[in-house]
Amino acid sequence: MIVPIPPGERTYRAQQAFEFAGSDLAGLVLFDDQLIQYFTGFIFIPTERPIALIITREGERILFVPRLEYEHALETAQVEEVRSYPEFPGEQHPLLFLSEHLQQLGLRRGLIGVDHDGYPPVMGYSGPALSELFAIRRVSAALDRQMALKSEPELSLIRESARWAGHAHRLLQQYTRPGLSESEVEARATREATQAMQAEMGPGFRSHNRWISGAVALYRGQIGPNSALPHAISINAVFKAGDNLVTGASAGVWGYLSELERTMFVGEPTPQQRHYFRHMLELQDLALEHMRPGRACADVDRVVRAYYEREGLLPYWRHHVGHSLGQRIHESPFLDIGEQAVLEPGMVFSIEPGLYVPGLGGFRHSDTVLITSRGAELLTHYPRELEALIIPA
Amino acid sequence: MIVPIPPGERTYRAQQAFEFAGSDLAGLVLFDDQLIQYFTGFIFIPTERPIALIITREGERILFVPRLEYEHALETAQVEEVRSYPEFPGEQHPLLFLSEHLQQLGLRRGLIGVDHDGYPPVMGYSGPALSELFAIRRVSAALDRQMALKSEPELSLIRESARWAGHAHRLLQQYTRPGLSESEVEARATREATQAMQAEMGPGFRSHNRWISGAVALYRGQIGPNSALPHAISINAVFKAGDNLVTGASAGVWGYLSELERTMFVGEPTPQQRHYFRHMLELQDLALEHMRPGRACADVDRVVRAYYEREGLLPYWRHHVGHSLGQRIHESPFLDIGEQAVLEPGMVFSIEPGLYVPGLGGFRHSDTVLITSRGAELLTHYPRELEALIIPA
Repeated sequence: MIVPIPPGERTYRAQQAFEFAGSDLAGLVLFDDQLIQYFTGFIFIPTERPIALIITREGERILFVPRLEYEHALETAQVEEVRSYPEFPGEQHPLLFLSEHLQQLGLRRGLIGVDHDGYPPVMGYSGPALSELFAIRRVSAALDRQMALKSEPELSLIRESARWAGHAHRLLQQYTRPGLSESEVEARATREATQAMQAEMGPGFRSHNRWISGAVALYRGQIGPNSALPHAISINAVFKAGDNLVTGASAGVWGYLSELERTMFVGEPTPQQRHYFRHMLELQDLALEHMRPGRACADVDRVVRAYYEREGLLPYWRHHVGHSLGQRIHESPFLDIGEQAVLEPGMVFSIEPGLYVPGLGGFRHSDTVLITSRGAELLTHYPRELEALIIPA
Repeated sequence: MIVPIPPGERTYRAQQAFEFAGSDLAGLVLFDDQLIQYFTGFIFIPTERPIALIITREGERILFVPRLEYEHALETAQVEEVRSYPEFPGEQHPLLFLSEHLQQLGLRRGLIGVDHDGYPPVMGYSGPALSELFAIRRVSAALDRQMALKSEPELSLIRESARWAGHAHRLLQQYTRPGLSESEVEARATREATQAMQAEMGPGFRSHNRWISGAVALYRGQIGPNSALPHAISINAVFKAGDNLVTGASAGVWGYLSELERTMFVGEPTPQQRHYFRHMLELQDLALEHMRPGRACADVDRVVRAYYEREGLLPYWRHHVGHSLGQRIHESPFLDIGEQAVLEPGMVFSIEPGLYVPGLGGFRHSDTVLITSRGAELLTHYPRELEALIIPA
């Protein structure tokens, strides 16, 4: 039975936040929708009307919303209190109301941890920096360290996401045929996988994830030579023999997601396609070998980059080995030579070193991996070998 | 023939930006994806890898991207130059590379206008404030004033969006029937309207809008008593006689959008539903009457609020009269008592005062209106009267 994160875990997160952000802080003020979801389960899309979460030193959560969102917040946010302001811009700026609430809560005497010095200017918002209103310290990197360590309930949801990502990907592979278009194949695989997931999960189930709703499997335009663009955008290509394909699949499960990507070919791959595919598999294997607690994130990227260099593949390098993920599609720490963090049990990463050959195509598998006390555990399960990834032409 | 914004207009915008942001600035550094699209036509989804646009005093545009996005930027961005950094976090932080580029361009000697003091912490990003690297002034509100004044090419795209919003809404109304579910009706109307738009526009057409792809018509869960939540989220309700409905329709046309919303009823409305519907129409008429150049935005909201007060409707008030729109789904200035701006020809607003009656439902029409030199012009055309908005039960 797949259940949402228990409310008690979010309560605990709010109390524990100060261990990461600093016990010298009088409180926290957070604007980021992903941090607010993490601590309260409240789901919203940021607009020009600021929403902020205040967390007191005792772990009390006060959600600060525009009047428009008051009932919605009361019904769905796991917080101790909801307070509202009339409107943005309003006769008094929302951040001045926020500052008054901090005063009433006795928090203005101390240093406040903030995710950002002011509400980011989305959709026509403007307003003061928080540092003009009270003493702040930026703590988003510290809270990212908290989010990076996944609990058992979080891991259950990520595992379930990986299972549905695999199902969606199997349908994508099965329905891809020369002569069909990218969008029709994606739409069919995504629709059927989502329906299967909803049927199994039951009517109360929600994806509750900003990026992934339902179960999805996509090409995002990474078809033929266009697959050499690592983050391509759909071009609604028609599949044809000889195409190099790079896929992506995931599923949103009560806020959490996973990542599964494969390189596939339409028809028998050429020697050149086999050559780069083999190197890509080697690169991913090499990264996986180094995934264990105590290893520096930077070292994983460093050994992989050394392989690119040794094999003359640097012209085809475009990005680091991978990123953390969980509630967000990308999280820190990163598997990157500039990353300071060390791998710890409970961290979840994508492993996805890629090769991008202009004129030919892209080569990238991505798998989701959990760091355990003894090593690493693959959470995505899908064939990786070339012979299993050829679409009949 | 519907054509994208001509490249020359984006060049002109970059030169003109300093008239809004201040001619004392040595240059601009912008992170916001919507501002970057406005000045360069480059479309991207913000991630932890910062993308920044530098604009020099001469209007020269230098796009700063991660290696990953270099080819994509070269191919699609209307800029004078693309420069890249290897990766985030990388051995050297991307913002230190950015600072070096500003140095090389001779911009570090002066004051730099920025949309935000640092890249917002999305998806695990962390990094320095820009004010730690060079002297800044925040200019996002000033650039919002520039974006608020629409050109003829922009207005053509917004008009076209309004036409397709109307088409999608007609299908939504036509397909809504008791016993059908919200999601199947939305999906059918949206799919058919998008197909019709693509067929008419031809294969080269793109929506290129962050919020709206294709032509859409939705309920977003605003069905029955749940329509009393102004920004509801889909609940996949099944329509039944007596339901109060609030809709939303739009279309993305080469980056631009419009807004069309209607209150509808399933079956004959009750006297109570008629009562609030009539007040809602009066509120919208009242707002429309005051839409003319030279009028303060705040005054429009003030006269409308006075109506709520006079008629004892304040318990059902949730938000101001409307917002600007164009490339973004919400833009400034706002039709709000706290807004400082005055209505000017070329501004485009939603007019959408609403009534939200707990236990009964929501009542809101939204139309898109252009301020002209002589008054205001309705860009959305759809029946507003109750008798035209009843779904047979």
